[in-house]
Amino acid sequence: MKLFRYVKHDGVYPGMVDSSGQLRDISAHVDDVSRACLSDTELARLCELDEHRLPLISTPVRYLPPISDISKFIAIGLNYLDHAEEAGLAIPSEPLVFFKPVSCISGADDPIVQPPHSRQLDWEVELGVVIGKRARYVPVAQALEHVAGYCVANDVSDRGFQFQSSQWDKGKSSDSFGPLGPWLVTRDEVPDPQSLPMWLEVNGQRRQEGNTQTMIFSVAEIISYCSHYMTLDVGDVIITGTPPGVSMGMKPHPEWLEPGDEVVLSICGLGVQRHVVMRYEAEQA
Amino acid sequence: MKLFRYVKHDGVYPGMVDSSGQLRDISAHVDDVSRACLSDTELARLCELDEHRLPLISTPVRYLPPISDISKFIAIGLNYLDHAEEAGLAIPSEPLVFFKPVSCISGADDPIVQPPHSRQLDWEVELGVVIGKRARYVPVAQALEHVAGYCVANDVSDRGFQFQSSQWDKGKSSDSFGPLGPWLVTRDEVPDPQSLPMWLEVNGQRRQEGNTQTMIFSVAEIISYCSHYMTLDVGDVIITGTPPGVSMGMKPHPEWLEPGDEVVLSICGLGVQRHVVMRYEAEQA
Repeated sequence: MKLFRYVKHDGVYPGMVDSSGQLRDISAHVDDVSRACLSDTELARLCELDEHRLPLISTPVRYLPPISDISKFIAIGLNYLDHAEEAGLAIPSEPLVFFKPVSCISGADDPIVQPPHSRQLDWEVELGVVIGKRARYVPVAQALEHVAGYCVANDVSDRGFQFQSSQWDKGKSSDSFGPLGPWLVTRDEVPDPQSLPMWLEVNGQRRQEGNTQTMIFSVAEIISYCSHYMTLDVGDVIITGTPPGVSMGMKPHPEWLEPGDEVVLSICGLGVQRHVVMRYEAEQA
Repeated sequence: MKLFRYVKHDGVYPGMVDSSGQLRDISAHVDDVSRACLSDTELARLCELDEHRLPLISTPVRYLPPISDISKFIAIGLNYLDHAEEAGLAIPSEPLVFFKPVSCISGADDPIVQPPHSRQLDWEVELGVVIGKRARYVPVAQALEHVAGYCVANDVSDRGFQFQSSQWDKGKSSDSFGPLGPWLVTRDEVPDPQSLPMWLEVNGQRRQEGNTQTMIFSVAEIISYCSHYMTLDVGDVIITGTPPGVSMGMKPHPEWLEPGDEVVLSICGLGVQRHVVMRYEAEQA
């Protein structure tokens, strides 16, 4: 099942992608795709809806982040061997955990807004994991039972901000630096999260190409590991690292994102994100 | 005004400290101390309540975190000159920003729960700042207008977790590592956040003693700075660094916290926190 949230007449509605790929509204059956939806029971209830009786949504839609009330946004750094090498950073011996703030989360087709003082704007296609069942000290073998589903993520970063101090968080935090979606794809549709091809293009040029096969730490290992350092709550999102091909690693020199650039990214089965880079415009007083 | 949240009969209630220091229930006037309370207008409305007509609360109470729905928990590292020196780390040239997850937030008198694999459990008394008005690219001169109030915070850390990788977040994240409160003290009661004495004791021995006078970056500078890297939303909490005296800096060797230890800390005018360190007990199935 592929769930999503979209904007209509200034309201937010929940939807589902049907088996032929059409978008259907499920607002008669659930208020929103929120934490309350993510239990196995609730997901099973939605899965039993007769898709042909659900109203079709006229496209295109503006997608919102696929879960309404994400409480933690956890990121894993340097989780693909080749990316650690291109970044010139040591291969981690344990998953390298940091956080992004929930205020940076945006929709799958929302613009990437470049802060006025940003000069090194970069991209990172990543597999996002949505927690569906609270996890504390879970063993690796049971870890995937705590997953509600998966989504595409872009860990947008400003490398100047990121490496100004020892701590990366600041460079990963600006509004719009965390596009998630378009869909939350439930885990039954992703039998093996370690065999997902992914790619990212900038202005039509392929920049990243990878596969979750080459992760250093698997999704199950990451969930288990994180759950030994904090409680993973329902609705938390973990993004799991990026394969090679970010701007920072480009030779002879990085080609940072600039206003007007278009970034398109996808993970097989999880949908496509399409962002235009925009300059930040100060709000009217 | 000093607002708080407390537990009674399994429910959560809002309260206020009256001018004689007694605790009063304000649940007839507001549902909870939440983001919705933090605007200047709403705080002014609560401030006008006739305190003598508010029901007295029988003490002691179990305090909860003083705001119900904190969305971001931002921390500033190494913001006191002497603490940076005792940690053996470089003096930052800009505020050093990292995040703690909201799942680590606990109440002022709740136990500090030591994870099973934690061996270097440490304390950090800090001034907490609660955002009352959204802040984006705010100048330093206007920054304090975005503050709803202040609270005591303890940035509990496991130094082994913190320094295992380059990123500190993991060592700051375990459940109970973020006690806030007891009260949210509104900014009208804290005319100068840069002259607040603070202290912390372990088992009755004074370990930290400091004053916000010696911050490297002031509260206003921190708010302005953070607002250039992310939107600060109503209800976000920023903790602003710790003065010298953490276990990590003790000579001849650190005295890490152990189960049974009692940690008491306070900032002048903002109340007292009192924590007992407990071993983590796995939940019953």
